[in-house]
Amino acid sequence: MPKLRVASFAISIDGFGAGPNQSLENPLGIGGGGLHEWFYPTQTFQKMMGRDGTLGTDNDFAVRGFENVGAWILGRNMFSPYRGPWTQDWKGWWGDNPPYHCPTFVMTHHERAPLEMEGGTTFHFTSEPLERVLERAFAAAGGKDVRIGGGVSTINQFVAAGLVDEMHIVLSPVILGSGERLFESIDLKALGYSCTVFQGTNRAVHMVLSK
Amino acid sequence: MPKLRVASFAISIDGFGAGPNQSLENPLGIGGGGLHEWFYPTQTFQKMMGRDGTLGTDNDFAVRGFENVGAWILGRNMFSPYRGPWTQDWKGWWGDNPPYHCPTFVMTHHERAPLEMEGGTTFHFTSEPLERVLERAFAAAGGKDVRIGGGVSTINQFVAAGLVDEMHIVLSPVILGSGERLFESIDLKALGYSCTVFQGTNRAVHMVLSK
Repeated sequence: MPKLRVASFAISIDGFGAGPNQSLENPLGIGGGGLHEWFYPTQTFQKMMGRDGTLGTDNDFAVRGFENVGAWILGRNMFSPYRGPWTQDWKGWWGDNPPYHCPTFVMTHHERAPLEMEGGTTFHFTSEPLERVLERAFAAAGGKDVRIGGGVSTINQFVAAGLVDEMHIVLSPVILGSGERLFESIDLKALGYSCTVFQGTNRAVHMVLSK
Repeated sequence: MPKLRVASFAISIDGFGAGPNQSLENPLGIGGGGLHEWFYPTQTFQKMMGRDGTLGTDNDFAVRGFENVGAWILGRNMFSPYRGPWTQDWKGWWGDNPPYHCPTFVMTHHERAPLEMEGGTTFHFTSEPLERVLERAFAAAGGKDVRIGGGVSTINQFVAAGLVDEMHIVLSPVILGSGERLFESIDLKALGYSCTVFQGTNRAVHMVLSK
């Protein structure tokens, strides 16, 4: 059965998945970049820029996050620093060839025509309910898994609705102080999750929460 | 300079330092015992019962938590499952010889005469303000550090007041779902903390937050 997954999603020691005050200059909020220090050196990330990177546990988890993914779901704030109606010609943070390489659904209150990028990524903008977005994403994924990229608010909505099968969460050794808290007001135990993988490295702790 | 420290304080993946519904049967709340699976096998814990235990990173941190401690501060709910005025002859969870071995201040709204136990522990019950309790604890510690044992509410109060110098927090691979959240509504960054130690083991991740 195809799964709805969260993968390689990093949070701070104080539980935040992004720093405060996201902007064009701070795509991950202030200090949010520190969440991904485990990811930047990996081969998975470095090869996107044609460079060599590290192997090992951090890279293994990063690789796994991209395996068997047929569609993505992103929140609008992960796609763009702008709010409200689409007045800019914004095509995401990732240049002409985004790292998704498959249909990618952007949840927004403001509809917009699909955006076909290089490398197989097409951004579909949708204001439909979660369940309908998920249905479309699974159909587009053609039997593969659907991965929720983030951000926190999008993940929390899908988790609270009981729709997420598996989450690979990465705890990074940073303090953000404020921001959006992953799992805020969510009872993971009542939803049936347990921690099935728990593995530390020099840079982070990898945890898999499964139902 | 003597420090005010938190040590070996364990939280769940979802950020709770105790489970819900503490009672005589569940001193750490429902499921809360799972927070301490890293601690139970260690020599530090086992030798309290005259048995051998494990050495290594988990034990090193446990040992460090007891070093140079001259006084403790506990919240009333860490001392007792009962609420309100002291109607029971309750002497703590730990038998005649508690693991504190020095003056231990219990913060409560209900005053009570000091309780002298075996092994050097005397419980002092106080309803004074945080700063005054801390002053008394440092005086009693005779130049050594003061350790806050817990629980969450007590730690949060001292942290929010800017009084805690160093915290060794342990993340355990358990999900509690609900309970008391460590650092709830506290901005650790604004308070000046950074993560100075981050070390994973098979059973937990040890993090030291320092100012």
